[in-house]
Formats: sequence, C-alpha cells, structure tokens
Amino acid sequence: MLIVPEREIANLMTREAAFDAVEKVFASMASDDAYNFPVVREAIGHEDALYGFKGGFDRAGLTLGLKAGGYWPNNLEKRDLINHQSTVFLFDPDTGKAKAMVGGNLLTALRTAAASSVSIKHLAREDSKVIGMIGAGHQATFQLRAALEQRNFEKVIGWNYHPEMLPNIENVATEAGIPFEAVELDGMREADVIISITSAFTPSLLAAQVSEGTHVACMGTDTKGKQEVEAALLAKAAVFTDEVAQSISIGEAQHAIAQGLINEADVHQIGAVINGTHAGRTSDNQITLFDGTGVGLQDLAVAASVVDLAVQKGVAIEVDF
Amino acid sequence: MLIVPEREIANLMTREAAFDAVEKVFASMASDDAYNFPVVREAIGHEDALYGFKGGFDRAGLTLGLKAGGYWPNNLEKRDLINHQSTVFLFDPDTGKAKAMVGGNLLTALRTAAASSVSIKHLAREDSKVIGMIGAGHQATFQLRAALEQRNFEKVIGWNYHPEMLPNIENVATEAGIPFEAVELDGMREADVIISITSAFTPSLLAAQVSEGTHVACMGTDTKGKQEVEAALLAKAAVFTDEVAQSISIGEAQHAIAQGLINEADVHQIGAVINGTHAGRTSDNQITLFDGTGVGLQDLAVAASVVDLAVQKGVAIEVDF
Repeated sequence: MLIVPEREIANLMTREAAFDAVEKVFASMASDDAYNFPVVREAIGHEDALYGFKGGFDRAGLTLGLKAGGYWPNNLEKRDLINHQSTVFLFDPDTGKAKAMVGGNLLTALRTAAASSVSIKHLAREDSKVIGMIGAGHQATFQLRAALEQRNFEKVIGWNYHPEMLPNIENVATEAGIPFEAVELDGMREADVIISITSAFTPSLLAAQVSEGTHVACMGTDTKGKQEVEAALLAKAAVFTDEVAQSISIGEAQHAIAQGLINEADVHQIGAVINGTHAGRTSDNQITLFDGTGVGLQDLAVAASVVDLAVQKGVAIEVDF
Repeated sequence: MLIVPEREIANLMTREAAFDAVEKVFASMASDDAYNFPVVREAIGHEDALYGFKGGFDRAGLTLGLKAGGYWPNNLEKRDLINHQSTVFLFDPDTGKAKAMVGGNLLTALRTAAASSVSIKHLAREDSKVIGMIGAGHQATFQLRAALEQRNFEKVIGWNYHPEMLPNIENVATEAGIPFEAVELDGMREADVIISITSAFTPSLLAAQVSEGTHVACMGTDTKGKQEVEAALLAKAAVFTDEVAQSISIGEAQHAIAQGLINEADVHQIGAVINGTHAGRTSDNQITLFDGTGVGLQDLAVAASVVDLAVQKGVAIEVDF
C-alpha cells in the first residue's frame, strides 16, 4: 500500500503529466475502455458540507478506485484549511485490495485545468491569439496556466463578477510574459478561446458575446441549477463534453437540453475527437464548446500518474497494509 | 492519518465491541441521527469482480466515510486471497480530511455477525434454548459464535445444502460446549432462533418449518433475486430490518413485497426496538424476523471502534498525510 500525501503532490505532478493522464482517460471513455460509476453526493447536515464519492474503472489503464471528499465551506475561515478536501484511493483491479492513497486537493485543480487544456488542444483554432477568462478565483489560475501551453497566445483578457480578483489571473499572464486586459463581457468578442470557471447560477456570457470561430470551455457547472453561459450559445456551437450523461443533467448543457435547444445526440464526447472517431472542429468559423463536468476517472488517472512519479522519486510512503 | 491493517484486526476487535458499535448505530439510524448514502455496486467487467462503495454519516457518533471493495471470485483459487476484499475509510466530518484507513475483511464478518446478535438480543424469546443454523460456510461460524452469547442456548441444530460443510458450525458449538445435531429443514421446527446465512436464489426455509415464537434472522440476501426463506414466512412474522429501503428492494423482504404479502409499512427498523419507540416482540407466540441487509454505517461503526482500540493499544500506524 502506497501513500502519497498532499504535501508531496506539488513537487511530483506536472501540468504535462496531468494533461497526458486526462487526455488518455478521455480517449478510453470514448472507446468504452473506461467508465465512471454513479456519483454519490450528499449534503451531510454538518458544517454545511457536501461529501461524496466519484469512482470509476479504466480497463485500459487498469485503474480502479474513487475520489472521496467534498466541500467544507467553513474550513478556511474556521481552520485555515482549504474548503475543497479530497483523497483518492486506488485499488488493484486484479484482487480488490487497496493499492494507494493520494492527496486529492491539488490533483483536482490540475485535472480540471488539464480538461480545458485538452479541449483547447483538440478544438481551438490553431491560430488562436487571444484567450478570455471568465472567473478569476484560485481555480482560474490553474486553468489559465495550463491553457497558455496549448497555443501561442498573445493576449489574455479577463472578466470577473468581483473585478478586484482579476489580479489573480493577471499575475499568471504576466509570469508567462503575456499582456493582460480587464474587459467587460462584451469584450469577450475579441477572444479566440474563452474559459469560463465560475460557480454561478445565472449565465455570465451571452451567445452574442462570442465571435465565430471561438472555442469556449465551460468548466464551472457541475450541479443542477448552475449556469455559466446563455443556453442559446450551445445551440450555435458544436458541443463536446467529458461525459454526456453528466453534461446533460448537471453540466452546462442541462439548460439547453431542458429548453429543447439541443438534444442529447448533439453532445459529443471529447474522447471521440482524441480517438479520431469524431472530426471535432470542422471549420474556422465554427464555435466549439467544451462542457467540462469533472469525472472520477480524471481523478483516478492523475492519481495513478502521481503514484508512479512518487515511486520513481522514492517519496511514496510504503505501509504494510 | 491512522492506519489499522487487516492483520491487526483480529487482535483488536472483540465480538462485544462489534455488538456495541452495531447496536448503537442501528439506534442512531432509527432516531435519524445516522443515515446511509446510496450504494454504488458495479460489475466492473474484470476478474468477474463486483466492486463498490457503501458510505454513510452518523451525526451522533460523528463517523463519516465509506467501505470500498467487493467480491473477487477468483482470488482464492488464483492467488490464495479471500474473495471478499474491502477497506474502510473514515473522514473527519468537521474538515473533510481523511482520518483513518482500516482493513475491512474481518470487520465485515464481525459486523454481520453482530447484526443478527443484536436482533436476537432484542427480538428472540428470553427462554430460547435451541438455535438453528441454515448455512455452514465461513460466515456462518461468525454468526453462530456471536449468537451463542445472547441466550442460554442448550443445542445447536444445522442444515446446509452441502452437508459436508456442517462440521464448520459443529466445531463452533463444540468449542462452546453445546451439542450439535444435523437436521433436515423440517427439523428447524425445534428451533427457538434460526439464523439463515446462505447466498441462495431460491428459498430454503418454508413458512411451515418455523414454529410459533421463533425468531428468524435472514442474513444472506443483499441483492435482487436472492432469497433464503419462503415469502409467506414474512407475512406470518413481525418483520424488522436494518434499513427499510434496502430490505424491500434487495433484502429478504423484496419477495413478500413484490408478491403483495406485506407492505413497506410492515417492515420496521430494528433501531426503533433498541430505542424503545417500537415494542418489538409482543408475545411468546409471535414469529419475529430480522432482515439483515448490511449497511455502510455498520462498517463505519466497527471501523471507528477498532481505530479507538488500535490507538489505545499503540498499534495504529500514524502517517503524516
């Protein structure tokens, strides 16, 4: 039994390794080599916490297990701990024995960032120059940092409901040597790629604020009722997702589906594009939209990857369990 | 983070501690202080394994977490490992951080045995003398050993589909200094308490084979389609269970419910009897039946108990996670 504590993850895991793990498992999902289990998500009635399990099995990678944890909204204020707390447990699919326990907090941030990056690699125009960020919280910095590696971006523009948070993403742009500009939502028309990473319940970005040829990654909607972009945008776009079942029920596509603007058959697995069984973007004018809902297999994939790295570097704690 | 490996459990956990933990959590469930999460159970399509998660939260005991694992039917033959493999993970309900990891194999056997014992304590006649066992596998020995502590039994009778396995339970009776007799199912009429612990899909015990005043604990049915006793027996009996929702869907009561012989309202929580909000057995003639389906909270309760014992005895492995 191997243990990789949270404090080791930053020294071990790279954006590249997270990208590779997530790209590979999205492909496995589309070829039916990997599937996610039903998600358990419970408001436990204690500390206003949401707690649950996201599990899955990747037959191709032989990765089995779950991420357990959730959201403890009082952690930061009461205890100086981050509010999202999770742990990944990997099992040996040959025997059912516990195999590894891995801190899941930073991994969750990295795998979420990797998902929008995978979508940019496979769906954004090659000549994309301007990236727009909607949302400027902690997770937005991960999304932007990973996204900047996918195209030769020359400018970052950003909008946030609380503009005083924009320096979070401005700093990432500055570190990368790319100019940053705060914009109104109308200013997003300039963007070739837009990443939305908010936890809003009313849409920020309207369909009219997205230019032809743009790739939009909606990364914040993972619950019934949440919404980042106007449903009409999905009707105009070629829509892709990590998992169709989640996209249409708890993801960004839930609203367009509910309003009858699109059908389930209009939502495609990003893994099919990776595998080459779906063409993906078919013209420079097309708007593509990736609905990143977050699946357990992503967590398992990055955790398995970091366990390998921890073993290579000799920092995995071995417990005779 | 505390770790209690499987090999330590036998030295730490007692039948008494398992009994107390299970009795307490059944009571918490009935007073709505504890609840189980939806169960995830997946045929993963590898090694014919069934894998899943049983989680829950006990607000009274502040126990949060899950048991993960399942059934790997080829383990014993291929690898000399037991086929049921599980691990319990406990979380701090105040913060969401992982708190303990505990080997779940022996604990599962002990908590299942504790459940029928709790039912005997609260539902069997005080003057019960003869205990009947249906099933003589590995788990049957746990059920019998725990049951013998609940009443002054003077005789053990047993039946098994494969009679050559009966020495398993005969040995337990002999160790306890109680005579054992192999019987046909008709012979169960002599029993004051019957424990059925098989994984049958057709009923073994018929209603006519159960005498007035008997307490029957059906411990083997945890899946749609499984059945240990004739459905008509439930119509004749006062029916109790660990969790009503499981009892009527995947437990022994599923068949009597499906055949319209009883209603959901006829199935009562054993915890209500423990709490004194349900009278339980109301006469010496009544047949009582406990449908033990197995819930995640039982696993969490015995795991929390064994972690306390491991800390007391200084054998918990502490990992800076």
